[in-house]
Parts: sequence; C-alpha cells; structure tokens
Amino acid sequence: MSTLKVVSSKLAAEIDKELMGPQIGFTLQQLMELAGFSVAQAVCRQFPLKGKTETEKGKHIFVIAGPGNNGGDGLVCARHLKIFGYNPVVYYPKRSDRTEFYKQLVHQLNFFKVPVLSQDENWLDYLKPEKTLCIVDAIFGFSFKPPMREPFKGIVEELCKLQDRIPIVSVDVPTGWDVDEGPISQPSVNPAVLVSLTVPKPCSTHIDEKHTTHYVGGRFIPRDFANKYGFETFGYESTDQILKL
Amino acid sequence: MSTLKVVSSKLAAEIDKELMGPQIGFTLQQLMELAGFSVAQAVCRQFPLKGKTETEKGKHIFVIAGPGNNGGDGLVCARHLKIFGYNPVVYYPKRSDRTEFYKQLVHQLNFFKVPVLSQDENWLDYLKPEKTLCIVDAIFGFSFKPPMREPFKGIVEELCKLQDRIPIVSVDVPTGWDVDEGPISQPSVNPAVLVSLTVPKPCSTHIDEKHTTHYVGGRFIPRDFANKYGFETFGYESTDQILKL
Repeated sequence: MSTLKVVSSKLAAEIDKELMGPQIGFTLQQLMELAGFSVAQAVCRQFPLKGKTETEKGKHIFVIAGPGNNGGDGLVCARHLKIFGYNPVVYYPKRSDRTEFYKQLVHQLNFFKVPVLSQDENWLDYLKPEKTLCIVDAIFGFSFKPPMREPFKGIVEELCKLQDRIPIVSVDVPTGWDVDEGPISQPSVNPAVLVSLTVPKPCSTHIDEKHTTHYVGGRFIPRDFANKYGFETFGYESTDQILKL
Repeated sequence: MSTLKVVSSKLAAEIDKELMGPQIGFTLQQLMELAGFSVAQAVCRQFPLKGKTETEKGKHIFVIAGPGNNGGDGLVCARHLKIFGYNPVVYYPKRSDRTEFYKQLVHQLNFFKVPVLSQDENWLDYLKPEKTLCIVDAIFGFSFKPPMREPFKGIVEELCKLQDRIPIVSVDVPTGWDVDEGPISQPSVNPAVLVSLTVPKPCSTHIDEKHTTHYVGGRFIPRDFANKYGFETFGYESTDQILKL
C-alpha cells in the first residue's frame, strides 16, 4: 500500500471547502449526487444482479445514513441503487435539519418507494443474512471525531456482530475509524468494501487487502488540483465513476 | 418507430414541473448533473477514445450552449467530457442571468480549463472537420418556440453547412425542430445523434434512423410515474445512464 496516495482529514476538509468555494463553484447538491452515484456503482460492481435469481435480486441493501454529508451521500446512493434494480431500505435515525435539501433527498426516496426508517422503527428486522445483500455504511465521514454517541454507538455495535455474515460497504471512512489513524476506537466496523471519495484518507492504509476491496469514487478533480494537494488523479476508465484500487 | 413512446412538449413540461415540485423534490442542480452526465456518456459511447491516435484524441468537441436549461445540460456535459479525456470547447453566446447556478457551471468549466467562448469570439475557428470530433447542440430544448432569433439563427445556419462533415449530437430536441412536429422550421439541424432526456419527444419520430443514432438518457423516473404519463421506463443496463433505442 506504500504507493497509495492519501490525504489527511485536514486536507480533505480544505479540498471540500475549495471545491465549493467561489472560485470553483461546485454545489453540495452536485458533489453529493456524483458521490452517491459512485457508491451505488461500486455496490453494483461488487454485487452484480446479472445472473442472480429473483430471490437474490429481492434481497435488501441496508443503507444506514448518518446526520451529515456522509449520510447525504448514502441517501443519494440508495436512490440510484433502486434505479439500478436493487431493493434498498434506508435507516435514517437522526435527520439533519441543516438544510431543506436533506428533506428533499428523503422525498426523492419516497418517490421511488424506498422505505426510510426512523429511529424508533424495527430496523434490525431488515438485517438478516438470508435477506440482506449488503450494508451501506454512510454514517460518518472524514469529519468524524470520537467518541461515538448514541444512537450510532449501539447501531455500530450491532453491525459489528453481523459483519461476518453481511458484507459492509463503507462510504469514505469506515464508521468508528479515526480518519487519520484507522480503527483505534471502539466500536469500529470492518468493511468488505471501502469507497474512498475523491482521494483515499490515511485510515484506508489500515484495511486488510485480503478482506476489503478498495474503490475510489467521486470523479470531479482535475490533475492540477490533485497535484496541488499532493496526489495524482486516478486512471478511471471511460465513463466510470469508480476505480478499483 | 411505431412502438416508440413519446410525450408532447406540454406533458414534458408537466413532468419537469412535478419532478421539481414539493412532493418529489428533485432540484434543478441534481437533474442537470444527471442529464449532462448522460449526454457525455452518449458522446463517449458514440465516439470512443479507446484505440484512437493522440491526434484524434486532441480533437475538439464543440459544445454550443443556449440560454436556458438545455444550455445548462450542455455546460455540465462539457465538464464530464473533459473528465472523460476529451477536449471540449464551449460556445456560450447568450448567458443566463436567471440564477447564480449558471455562473457556477461556468466557473466549474474554468476550473477544468475548458474554454468558454463569448459571443464575440472566433467560434468558427473551432469548427473545422479536421480538428473537431463532433458538435454538441445544447441550444434549445422542449420549450423552444419558433421563430429562432439571433445570434442562434446565424449559428444554426453555420451548423447546417458543416453537419455533413462534423457530426452533431443534439440534446433532447434538435435545434430548430418543433418539439411536437419535427423539422418544420428553418434553419434546422440534422443530428447524427439524438439524446432524448427522460423520454423521447414527438419530434424524435421524424429522425431518419439510417442517419441518426437515438439514445435516451436521464435515468431518474420510476415506473409508476412513467406509466402515469403514458410511457414505460427504459431497459437501461447496469449503471448506464443512457440506452440506445
């Protein structure tokens, strides 16, 4: 993994800020759409429906959305998964009131008949190895700082019990991991798939390559900009929004 | 073409309004990102870079953006084409002041070093068969009503002179065509590729299948919603955002 270029949580925050600043002018809505799409594409690449039985195709993808932007990526991802023919269910226990846009993302999921569970619903009913294809962990991203609070602490403890039987796809940072240091706090998930957004974070060097498939997604950075932050752009193919590292 | 389901300009306007209404809650920024991406994917499918010489890869894609949403799709498309490795140039003669977002789309193109030409620049210099791969016609969409005014009338007349030697990719509605009636007004382009967004419009039944490759793109409609408007969803494959019809 020595050749893998990573950027620290501090630099990742600067990159995000500059991308959405007055010079470049990306909006959160655009970047979230592309990020969520890329996570959905990674799920599709890792767990293709092609050739699967109807029973297999009917399995749930359990998307857990946290309260911030990582959760927003999860909401967008769930919508695209539904469009791709999957059967996502979203658990969104702590909803952001920060912007109207998060509510709109939920309306969009309603429109596509994707169930969005609230904190008090029986979310564990949807987490059974025989009927759950995978879990999308969109709880916390690069701005997470331990300790983890409830309800997420309890949720992640449940995920840890299930992760040997239901593969977890983590968005950008596996939940519970320190962005720079890796899995130093408890509880922490051990994802089967990690989708790094824009560029891998230092924690990604702690994944066990035998266990975890690593993708990068979020294809919206030109070379000069990447170089300025000390990394190279990735060799995405054709119109792909993800690349297996 | 008798089995092709189309919706009139009137219904297309209602679909757009409902998609961005309070119930469903899509934003213009989201739909434009997905629409522009799908047009870029159609260009990539039709004119793949793979196996091309460096000279071929260096050819321009000339994107002409109109003043409204069709133009916005073109601006987004140009950015994705650049990311996919193409060499787009945007001609944006009449810039929308309607929202800040259109300015941001131009900032994003500046960020990716995609030239954005103003009305008084020598745009014809970029339209040479030997150095132009194709033209993306993102001038007018389903809300266009003739007669066409300047500067677009003159621009489309130039495109008509060139279109036998440089293929035109039209976004949703070939410029100059009546959305419902087809190429009844002058000037009208004769595209080599038509990318219908969401669902084909009636004018698309007037294309000559021998000359024009027809894609549908903009994959953000569930089946129930399509049925309500009298059409079926399209059989997109995997994560594709376009389907060749």
